[in-house]
Amino acid sequence: MQVGQRWYRSIEGVDDGRSVRIVDQRRLPHHFEMAALTTVEEAFAAIREMWVRGAPLIGVTAAFGLAMAMNEDPSDDGVDRALQYLASSRPTAVNLFWALERVARRVRTHPPDARAEAAYRCAREMAEEDVERNRAIGDHGLPLLRELSERVGGRPLNVLTHCNAGWLATVDWGTATAPIYRAHAEGIPLHVWVSETRPRLQGAALTAWEMSGQGIDHTVVVDGAGASLMRGGEVDVVLVGTDRTTRSGDVANKIGTYGKALAAADNGVPFYVAVPSPSIDWSVADGDAEIPIEERSASEVTWVTGVDEGGAVREVRIVPEATHARNPAFDVTPADRVTGLITERGIAEASEEGLRRLFPDGSSDGS
Amino acid sequence: MQVGQRWYRSIEGVDDGRSVRIVDQRRLPHHFEMAALTTVEEAFAAIREMWVRGAPLIGVTAAFGLAMAMNEDPSDDGVDRALQYLASSRPTAVNLFWALERVARRVRTHPPDARAEAAYRCAREMAEEDVERNRAIGDHGLPLLRELSERVGGRPLNVLTHCNAGWLATVDWGTATAPIYRAHAEGIPLHVWVSETRPRLQGAALTAWEMSGQGIDHTVVVDGAGASLMRGGEVDVVLVGTDRTTRSGDVANKIGTYGKALAAADNGVPFYVAVPSPSIDWSVADGDAEIPIEERSASEVTWVTGVDEGGAVREVRIVPEATHARNPAFDVTPADRVTGLITERGIAEASEEGLRRLFPDGSSDGS
Repeated sequence: MQVGQRWYRSIEGVDDGRSVRIVDQRRLPHHFEMAALTTVEEAFAAIREMWVRGAPLIGVTAAFGLAMAMNEDPSDDGVDRALQYLASSRPTAVNLFWALERVARRVRTHPPDARAEAAYRCAREMAEEDVERNRAIGDHGLPLLRELSERVGGRPLNVLTHCNAGWLATVDWGTATAPIYRAHAEGIPLHVWVSETRPRLQGAALTAWEMSGQGIDHTVVVDGAGASLMRGGEVDVVLVGTDRTTRSGDVANKIGTYGKALAAADNGVPFYVAVPSPSIDWSVADGDAEIPIEERSASEVTWVTGVDEGGAVREVRIVPEATHARNPAFDVTPADRVTGLITERGIAEASEEGLRRLFPDGSSDGS
Repeated sequence: MQVGQRWYRSIEGVDDGRSVRIVDQRRLPHHFEMAALTTVEEAFAAIREMWVRGAPLIGVTAAFGLAMAMNEDPSDDGVDRALQYLASSRPTAVNLFWALERVARRVRTHPPDARAEAAYRCAREMAEEDVERNRAIGDHGLPLLRELSERVGGRPLNVLTHCNAGWLATVDWGTATAPIYRAHAEGIPLHVWVSETRPRLQGAALTAWEMSGQGIDHTVVVDGAGASLMRGGEVDVVLVGTDRTTRSGDVANKIGTYGKALAAADNGVPFYVAVPSPSIDWSVADGDAEIPIEERSASEVTWVTGVDEGGAVREVRIVPEATHARNPAFDVTPADRVTGLITERGIAEASEEGLRRLFPDGSSDGS
């Protein structure tokens, strides 16, 4: 998307054919900076430490990471080792495993000395496909937002989103934001409630920054406020992303999503999830039992990062020194609380039947 | 409660008969300090700026504030003016109006030159009654926690609470914490999930500090995590306070409470509210329509206070510079999502019938 005078992607291949530039998301919204990743270790750290985040972008970054590994050890063992190493970076987003398997399958068809180039080419293709997939989610989400907008008759449509399923979570366009950006471009009046998304504040930091950048009217609220806004009739639709959706339509997404789905159901607010097909885990039916939920460092809860009055980035501790915290990063929203899944092939009911109607082969595009 | 070697109350009368000492809650959990309030303007500021907060403590502070006003102008007009002034400090907690009416009624029975002393004496009585009321809530909540503890058979009982309904929200003991402190003293094994409670972090800052001080095992989580903990079977009971409960049992409490009630209902977790009778608004039946919800400054959302590595208190901004926020401070949980109301006279069903059974006169104790 456009930042200042230039168009950016959250990850960009470099002409050297062996490295990438990424938006360093740790520094947003206060500083916009690109950083270079050149080695598999750097790619691993960028995923683990969340310089990049968002299920689709994690997948593409891992794909480039595997290509970087091939510069050092393109043997069969080297492929296996790099795959396992990168797969251990984060546990919940299924796109990571999908992307790594796909690049690994491709490179194994090449002799070792051609693997680095083949992997890099494959990663670039996957980046392009991600962009197209999100564009298609925008195409399918647009009529939904238009219809909801017509129902509210002239006033801005109030969309609530949680975390960041924006262009920064993908290569471009975003998943949940793709319909929002399309609707805004079509002149549909919108207002976005941005749930701040503790602990890492991806809503307050990243989604608010994206909305500002695209000139979309938005308001940040604390995570506890969404349910009450719905009860008060101030939310027309909830639209979020997903890190992994089971074939039965259970949705793993950022912690706090499940509570929003309950509030939406309690107040008759439609609750949609933008799901690019690589986020569908066809091997899993029961989200609660089978999706591993990443437990991140307690310090993400007990310390908050922002800028002080002078603009310097600082961390502050918000709890007493002796207090412990727990930090489950995701939760699971059961399919029966989900109004629909917006995929690149159309809107599916959140059920195995609904998903198989759009994906009869039970696999993801391009794999 | 005990802090270090001494016992404190969150507000303490001073022997001069005209001022009070309060715990300055803006500085917790990082610094424990008492501050003096001597004038009605100081009492007003302490309530509005949340040096003191929590519905019961707001009421008692306002009562002392009215006494301070009597030092300056004890005329009938002076009583009316001070009452209106203090009543405008915060809109949601009904204890504020209840306490002011009670002191005003008392002082009007005295000639002007006796009003300051009468008001101060009345405020001290009210502080004592608050302590007794909370102790009684503890008495009635204790058997409930004991029974729940027996059901989980030996392992610690997991209690989730939101915001701070602790001794810092009252004169002593707290409302929601009174049963917890009693159960802990009785040797019932407990673990408290402390919902951090954005934006002002009363959970992370105040409840965690209280639990640390009393040696109760506790863990801070972000507000979005509570629902998922309940879904995972990690919460046995939710126990919160209230700023105003209607005669029909609708509960206004800190923003985020309603969502927790929905999650409790969805997962069969009992959801109890500790309600001292001065928090019951007998004049109101419909919480959504009739309870004014305070909208506080957006800067409470966009700036976070904590201490840096060196221990210095700092504020940091967490959103892009141009981003707006909204900050509704409370929400309303409908009576049908509430398992029971723990009052000083016993546990009531959250309904007019249930409350009238315990309070047949339809008014609060001591008024």
